Amino acid sequence: MKILWVFAHPEQRSLNGSLMTEGLRTLEELGHEHRVSDLYAMGWKAVVDADDFGDGPRERLFVGREQQRAYGDGELSKDILVEQEKIAWADTLVFQFPLWWFGPPAILKGWFDRVLVQGFGFGIEGPDGRTLRYGDGGLAGKRALVVTSVGARESGFGPRGIHGSIEEVLFPLLHGTFWYTGMAALPPFVVYGADRLTESGRSHGAAALRERLRTLHTTEPLPFRHENGGEYDEDLVLRPDIARGLSGVGVHRAPR
Amino acid sequence: MKILWVFAHPEQRSLNGSLMTEGLRTLEELGHEHRVSDLYAMGWKAVVDADDFGDGPRERLFVGREQQRAYGDGELSKDILVEQEKIAWADTLVFQFPLWWFGPPAILKGWFDRVLVQGFGFGIEGPDGRTLRYGDGGLAGKRALVVTSVGARESGFGPRGIHGSIEEVLFPLLHGTFWYTGMAALPPFVVYGADRLTESGRSHGAAALRERLRTLHTTEPLPFRHENGGEYDEDLVLRPDIARGLSGVGVHRAPR
Repeated sequence: MKILWVFAHPEQRSLNGSLMTEGLRTLEELGHEHRVSDLYAMGWKAVVDADDFGDGPRERLFVGREQQRAYGDGELSKDILVEQEKIAWADTLVFQFPLWWFGPPAILKGWFDRVLVQGFGFGIEGPDGRTLRYGDGGLAGKRALVVTSVGARESGFGPRGIHGSIEEVLFPLLHGTFWYTGMAALPPFVVYGADRLTESGRSHGAAALRERLRTLHTTEPLPFRHENGGEYDEDLVLRPDIARGLSGVGVHRAPR
Repeated sequence: MKILWVFAHPEQRSLNGSLMTEGLRTLEELGHEHRVSDLYAMGWKAVVDADDFGDGPRERLFVGREQQRAYGDGELSKDILVEQEKIAWADTLVFQFPLWWFGPPAILKGWFDRVLVQGFGFGIEGPDGRTLRYGDGGLAGKRALVVTSVGARESGFGPRGIHGSIEEVLFPLLHGTFWYTGMAALPPFVVYGADRLTESGRSHGAAALRERLRTLHTTEPLPFRHENGGEYDEDLVLRPDIARGLSGVGVHRAPR
């Protein structure tokens, strides 16, 4: 396998840093190839702005349109092109980050904002003229895994926990980003209680991560529904006979 | 009222820019005071790193702990202190941004990551020794409104729409950030179909925004449940008799 590991933590000597070291070592032992985007170490520019798009004449900046144009014209800035090349190379993407305000740190959010532009990550038309999205699209065929740490205890992230279940809290990433661009979203790997982890808790976390990496290619992805699979109507609303009477983000997962 | 308007769009001449202009004019007409944090115009630093925390001796950076320490010692960097002062001044916060990858742009995510540190936004103990969170906390008594634009049509953001309902997609922000720090989360103001908006669509959007601002202080906030209101058990799980048999992030909203 070819794995791109995107790491978004400012401190290599953190729990996350040691988990990445452990994870990369495991991938090597398993004979997989890997490349790393250590966003802090790279000094990754987090913010989308006009500097991303070459210096053609411009009056008003339409971000999405300009991203698509610059991608087509080969005028996206170099750092973006490098990341796109890594994504194209990889069959599996790992995103590792501490959960801050129930989402990825800004530096990683900015990686999605800047790299997954229209024409590359999405906005591609299929043979029948329909836009390929949600299970299909620019990154279809790849798998994506979140590896994250949270300070809080696990109970608060259960189906009725106060923080929301981790899969629903991460819905914008798992469904709205991975699945949207065609990538199969694997069940997230989460280390809970990271603020008070003992040495044995760390060992346990590392062992669990090794196991997840061993089964990276066989793990069943989250069973999100395909946009073009016949379950959504023309307004992109789930047909009444599917998950009848239910609502909420959970309805976009098919029952196993 | 005293309103802090946080704006996260790289282009002033955008739909978002004109909506902000319209919004600020309306606030003035209504006799409210306002201050603005135009994050792109300010060159806001999006990324948490060691530069945020003064230059004391440091071996390993524990982000949360160091944020709390630097806040207590008055050693947070100046740009963070300025934003915290604006928040303390305001009774209402407006966050305006285009929805990118179903969340705020990196520059705004980084505002939350850097400004809402432990000791200021959360992590404060109540008189009974319980941590004040979710409806209570550092920013209790304030209200927060999201003003956002999305390219997609509204139907896809309904209760069974493919993108997820806007309130559930924004759960990390509305519940996990606003409510977590004590702020009442108002129903988001959303302009749908922003990519294909006609002139009359823009006027309609501007009029709707003016109306929302007129009722800013009377609008009923989203009825999220209080952590310390007796509905959650010691593990922060919703008690079995509340929203019996249900799960998903929707259970954290009380029925009206």
